[in-house]
Amino acid sequence: MQSDEIVKSQGLPQGFVWGAVKAGIKASGNADVAIAVAAKGANGAAMFTKNQVVAAPVTVGRRHMASTGGRVGVVLVNAGNANCATGQPGVDACVQTCVAAAERFHCIFDEVFPSSTGIIGVPFPSEKVVAALPELEQEMGATPEHADSFARAIMTTDTKMKVARALVDVDGVEVRIFGVAKGAGMIHPQLGAPVGPAHATMLVYLFTDIAAESEQLRGVLEPAVERSFNSISIDGDTSTNDTVLLLASGASGVKLDARTQEPFANALKLVCGSLAYQIVDDGEGVGHVVTLHITGARTEAEAKQVAKAIAHSPLCKTAWSSADPNWGRLLAAAGYSGVVFDPALVNITIGSQPVFELGVRSAAFQESAAHAEMQARDYTITMDLGLGEAECRFLTCDLTEEYVRINADYST
Amino acid sequence: MQSDEIVKSQGLPQGFVWGAVKAGIKASGNADVAIAVAAKGANGAAMFTKNQVVAAPVTVGRRHMASTGGRVGVVLVNAGNANCATGQPGVDACVQTCVAAAERFHCIFDEVFPSSTGIIGVPFPSEKVVAALPELEQEMGATPEHADSFARAIMTTDTKMKVARALVDVDGVEVRIFGVAKGAGMIHPQLGAPVGPAHATMLVYLFTDIAAESEQLRGVLEPAVERSFNSISIDGDTSTNDTVLLLASGASGVKLDARTQEPFANALKLVCGSLAYQIVDDGEGVGHVVTLHITGARTEAEAKQVAKAIAHSPLCKTAWSSADPNWGRLLAAAGYSGVVFDPALVNITIGSQPVFELGVRSAAFQESAAHAEMQARDYTITMDLGLGEAECRFLTCDLTEEYVRINADYST
Repeated sequence: MQSDEIVKSQGLPQGFVWGAVKAGIKASGNADVAIAVAAKGANGAAMFTKNQVVAAPVTVGRRHMASTGGRVGVVLVNAGNANCATGQPGVDACVQTCVAAAERFHCIFDEVFPSSTGIIGVPFPSEKVVAALPELEQEMGATPEHADSFARAIMTTDTKMKVARALVDVDGVEVRIFGVAKGAGMIHPQLGAPVGPAHATMLVYLFTDIAAESEQLRGVLEPAVERSFNSISIDGDTSTNDTVLLLASGASGVKLDARTQEPFANALKLVCGSLAYQIVDDGEGVGHVVTLHITGARTEAEAKQVAKAIAHSPLCKTAWSSADPNWGRLLAAAGYSGVVFDPALVNITIGSQPVFELGVRSAAFQESAAHAEMQARDYTITMDLGLGEAECRFLTCDLTEEYVRINADYST
Repeated sequence: MQSDEIVKSQGLPQGFVWGAVKAGIKASGNADVAIAVAAKGANGAAMFTKNQVVAAPVTVGRRHMASTGGRVGVVLVNAGNANCATGQPGVDACVQTCVAAAERFHCIFDEVFPSSTGIIGVPFPSEKVVAALPELEQEMGATPEHADSFARAIMTTDTKMKVARALVDVDGVEVRIFGVAKGAGMIHPQLGAPVGPAHATMLVYLFTDIAAESEQLRGVLEPAVERSFNSISIDGDTSTNDTVLLLASGASGVKLDARTQEPFANALKLVCGSLAYQIVDDGEGVGHVVTLHITGARTEAEAKQVAKAIAHSPLCKTAWSSADPNWGRLLAAAGYSGVVFDPALVNITIGSQPVFELGVRSAAFQESAAHAEMQARDYTITMDLGLGEAECRFLTCDLTEEYVRINADYST
């Protein structure tokens, strides 16, 4: 680590360096191990998949966060092997990489936060990760190029890297947030606080230089995740490795307190919202990104339940792929969501086009106009249930032949 | 109705006649109105979709069954228009057809049981159904050809008619069951007793000549449906019209009682099982029919919950389409089912091939052998959860490009 080169990089939070190298894990030969180091450490909050089946790095990550109270010195990510369904040997291999990284970067072994993404069930090549550490130490830095290299190395089926930034100006001092994500298939994150069993081909790392305790960070992370990563679905498949990690170095000197709470939380939501959108937009075979805006619900939870039923309906999603304003399928999907409602109170619009009003097809329904709006890559379907004031926005996409081709490509 | 021609048709239950005509509702011009008449009436039990959005014939059918205590004289089915999301005019139109049929076939109007299947949201052409009744009266009969004509006329996207028969010999007297079904897409029936809101592009009519009260028929119908129609899914989309109707004419003279209960229930389960299999086998774009046999569960409900998560997983279903023995996807899908389990206790086999054992890939895993078994049109995946003695069998299928093509075919 070249400490005399840690400059105040434009837009990047202070207190971190990033790097990536090729360790020979990805079959493609691309860079596949990424590292982020907080030289003076960072406080963190993490959320993990609720899938019962969890990968070794999720088990180890949870354990580490619990034992350090959220203190993190190093984030160590590999792509190409998910280290999942690898039994105790997989957990041991993960711990080995943490121990080696702690030694090299001068922190305690459980201050190393590990992540993996890639193929399930193949023994984890920890020796390759360990062997890559000296080169990583040389490669790390605080420039935008360094940060981007981290973002690229964690990709698997993504076609592009996913980053987002925001900053909050507090009396002339910039507090910055830099977010990185990966994820293109097996996307229906159901992240929770790290207790109990856990899903993830979605990895998200949020770096900030605000000064905050881990408990405070949990308090801002959970609502940001709920409205972003927990409100998207590509294919309804919730993975075994999903992880969101928020790290605060404190290097800006600005504290997270009653005054800075709201602007910081809003900036975090912007970053998370942007990354969540990029994940869906880059989904396997995606032709259309569709926002389901469910309104007039009794509770936000019920609104989301309706949205999920629609987002997971193959009949709705195939209709979107051909820009077919088939509202009957939307209505039927909402109808089997498990939420009690009366179709006679429901109104549906596709983009600006009314299609269904109070139990019957809208008198103003114009099929060609609705079809035209659905040709856009990105549009919103609004369904008002007429039962209350609660609502939610849920981001999803169409189901295409391309998705099937990609995922039926044996052996992937 | 030509009463002097009601012969003891080989294998068909006595006390019924069937017929079908072309009423001009289906765009294809094929026969699209079907009728079954019990000249001396029949006792019945019905189960309807649990979709909140229900078609007019489901609303009317429920009402009729409630008011007659299950007594049915006529079953009147049309294909080509689902009479759903048609508001009060749709309900009135449905009632009109029932009144006209009751008049022609000499029963009370609520002894007419209506069903519709087809496009949603288009006003219902009741005048075409009413106009078809005289020709239906001429066409009806008790031969196998008449029964088959009923089975064909109710088809929509089905490629073949679906029928099944069974008989129980009671002291030399035959009690017969003849079952008819339709359904090829929008198949994930969730049928319940007819209370509350209700899904259906699946219609099932089970005719028998046993003598039984409606309450007894409900008692045998519900378990038969639970293990068959409520244990299948093509695409997870639960329709607005799903209906299963069991009618008993009593014409055999054999009573459903303590002695005949078990053989009759078993025969009914055979018929329902056969029809359920045919529905999945004829599913849109289906290449493989996959039975998910979930064992070692705490409860049957939990076993089914795991099965449903797998059956609705696009990643699992696309893998099946290319005969890919990707057990990681099966495990991940089970893991997000909501059922708590420990992957370290789980065993998975594909056909006869072990693929996953107690938390890790099976030592005996032979990819090519598993792939070969998955080339069969029809095979079983067994997942043992290691938690108890409960199990379930759930029938589903792969997700193919063909399915997407069919359902993205705008405007369908």
